[in-house]
Amino acid sequence: MKDFTFQNPVKIHFGHDKLSLLGDELKHFGKRVLLTYGGGSIKKIGLYDRVQQAVKDAGMELYELSGIEPNPRIDSVRKGAEMCKEHNIDVLLAVGGGSTIDCTKWIAAAACVEHDAWDFFDYDKWSPVEKALPIVSILTLSATGSEMDSGGVISNPETDDKRGRQSKLLFPKVSFLDPTLTYSVSPFQTAAGSADIFSHLMEVYFAPGETMYMLDTFIEGMMRTVIRYAPIAIREPENYEARANLMWTSSWAINGLVGADKPQAWSCHPMEHELSAVYDITHGLGLAILSPRWLEYCMNKDTMPKIAQFGINVFGIEPTMPQREIALRAIDALGHFLFDTLGLKRTLPECGIDESHFESMAAKAVLPYEGKLPGFCTLTKDDVVNIYRMCMK
Amino acid sequence: MKDFTFQNPVKIHFGHDKLSLLGDELKHFGKRVLLTYGGGSIKKIGLYDRVQQAVKDAGMELYELSGIEPNPRIDSVRKGAEMCKEHNIDVLLAVGGGSTIDCTKWIAAAACVEHDAWDFFDYDKWSPVEKALPIVSILTLSATGSEMDSGGVISNPETDDKRGRQSKLLFPKVSFLDPTLTYSVSPFQTAAGSADIFSHLMEVYFAPGETMYMLDTFIEGMMRTVIRYAPIAIREPENYEARANLMWTSSWAINGLVGADKPQAWSCHPMEHELSAVYDITHGLGLAILSPRWLEYCMNKDTMPKIAQFGINVFGIEPTMPQREIALRAIDALGHFLFDTLGLKRTLPECGIDESHFESMAAKAVLPYEGKLPGFCTLTKDDVVNIYRMCMK
Repeated sequence: MKDFTFQNPVKIHFGHDKLSLLGDELKHFGKRVLLTYGGGSIKKIGLYDRVQQAVKDAGMELYELSGIEPNPRIDSVRKGAEMCKEHNIDVLLAVGGGSTIDCTKWIAAAACVEHDAWDFFDYDKWSPVEKALPIVSILTLSATGSEMDSGGVISNPETDDKRGRQSKLLFPKVSFLDPTLTYSVSPFQTAAGSADIFSHLMEVYFAPGETMYMLDTFIEGMMRTVIRYAPIAIREPENYEARANLMWTSSWAINGLVGADKPQAWSCHPMEHELSAVYDITHGLGLAILSPRWLEYCMNKDTMPKIAQFGINVFGIEPTMPQREIALRAIDALGHFLFDTLGLKRTLPECGIDESHFESMAAKAVLPYEGKLPGFCTLTKDDVVNIYRMCMK
Repeated sequence: MKDFTFQNPVKIHFGHDKLSLLGDELKHFGKRVLLTYGGGSIKKIGLYDRVQQAVKDAGMELYELSGIEPNPRIDSVRKGAEMCKEHNIDVLLAVGGGSTIDCTKWIAAAACVEHDAWDFFDYDKWSPVEKALPIVSILTLSATGSEMDSGGVISNPETDDKRGRQSKLLFPKVSFLDPTLTYSVSPFQTAAGSADIFSHLMEVYFAPGETMYMLDTFIEGMMRTVIRYAPIAIREPENYEARANLMWTSSWAINGLVGADKPQAWSCHPMEHELSAVYDITHGLGLAILSPRWLEYCMNKDTMPKIAQFGINVFGIEPTMPQREIALRAIDALGHFLFDTLGLKRTLPECGIDESHFESMAAKAVLPYEGKLPGFCTLTKDDVVNIYRMCMK
């Protein structure tokens, strides 16, 4: 296991009755707040009105940026940064899922610089993040973990790019996690969000090199949590226990704790980012389609023990069988969970995706890694094309 | 499960090669550093010299308070606070186990007030913690979790009191967790430290009320980690993997994450604090002796399912047996682990403790709780006496 530094300063208010603290938390940071959100869902569940009231009661001025996209675009970042400068915003309040929070993080950074927002993501420029406005978030979808991490992914439709980046200045100061705010999340979005959480866990669980046993038990525990509660949340949208378990798992899957002991070498995410950059499909759905194929493609003598461990400790497969058999059953069990239990689409054609962009997407996926994705097994551009092809049927 | 707020801002540098950052971390806080430590063990392992060199290289002034006791006393807090005032200390550097770090936390608080340090612990006064000097710690014993929490326990031999208290101002700013610094920890201290970690986990696992499944998987994973690695660390003191797993588990067992979803209602710790206040026995040893008796005493129709869950998920007991049988075997397995595998003493008489103070210790244990310890099962003074008596043979 490798040396690491861990620090996660986000203050989390978790539970039914915590939103009453919103005004007090916002007031710490100043007087002018920019509320950022996506579509109308926060109005439908009454959250928009509650936020308005809280900001008003706190004696603060409210500005609004709505319409942040599911795969948030650099133009929204630009627009938000402009508003911050124009209105001298003191604090950003992101209300939504990971897309809104991701976008808001980069608004917070872009508001503090004079250059174009895409310069943060341009590989030639990679402008430093030296300052950012404070961010408070209210989470409405359990999936990306953006509420408790320091990264955000932004799309640039002009260049078909979708890129992620982290900075410790972009941790939210405070995040409100109220599981009841996810009661209205649709079965499909619940399934896709759960697949996203599960994929974050797989990306760090299936990493090259030695791992810390204790952190593996956390990952396996969170995987079992998703397997246990995602189907309940789909079936009973207002089951507090299920929503709470998924919500807290979404945060801890990707807040820097698990995986700190391993080289960060993600595989499905870079491959999926190209899919949703070109086709704008739901991130968690893309990950679900890719994950079992990727695991199957990576299976060899060296990777088999870990896949078998996954089968035994996560899916409860009988440990007395031959290792290869356990590993194969684990991959089957993963597919069964994602496609049969969660009901997600199994193939790319079902999502309207054909082979026409596989070569260019694969080239882009490996580009930042000098041509080789350095994950559980190393993937060249051709390997990525092969994995995309496995998703055709 | 209950609502909660979670925030843990401690920056952890974990691994072999992290101490090189010590000077840089200290410099952030000023120029004058007070080094606090216990006996000579940090000199024996060369750590004292490394710290001296780092402070010198950072161009800082070093002051020293040594001789902090295993159950740290209020007089050490007083002495440290005096030194801070006299030398205008900017930052405290605690090098040692939980006792040194606990003591240093309260030095940090006492340095900022004019009143006597015991006023923080006097139930009639309970003076507020409104300011504290910054603390950096270097951990040399995996046990109390003080390196990543905000509490500290202090003894007052004049009154036979041992009391704990938390304040968010007392989180260390930075803690260095280098598993190699625990290579020289003796088999007994390794066993006692592991029993302490295990007890922290039991205190939150066996709590009244509903729990969050996901956090239970973390607790069970950490319990299995202790069971797996404590014997290895005892047998092979320089096994990095074992020392690393115990070290990171010591922090996460008690840093506010697991247990946040439940009422904090600890049982063995209050009972043990009285034992070590009167007899000055090693905290982890006292906890080990008490834990299986306490669990046995608490077993009833309501508590049995959780004890059985513990047996199945932590000790791997066959889940098909009757619940009562599983629970009884779990308690047996716990005793077997603590006394046979870790080799800790099984009874109080083996530690030179007789019944003479049971009544007064039990009265003190329940005093802050209005006569009833509100844990997994509620314990009156008589219950506590009964549990102490169970530890006689």
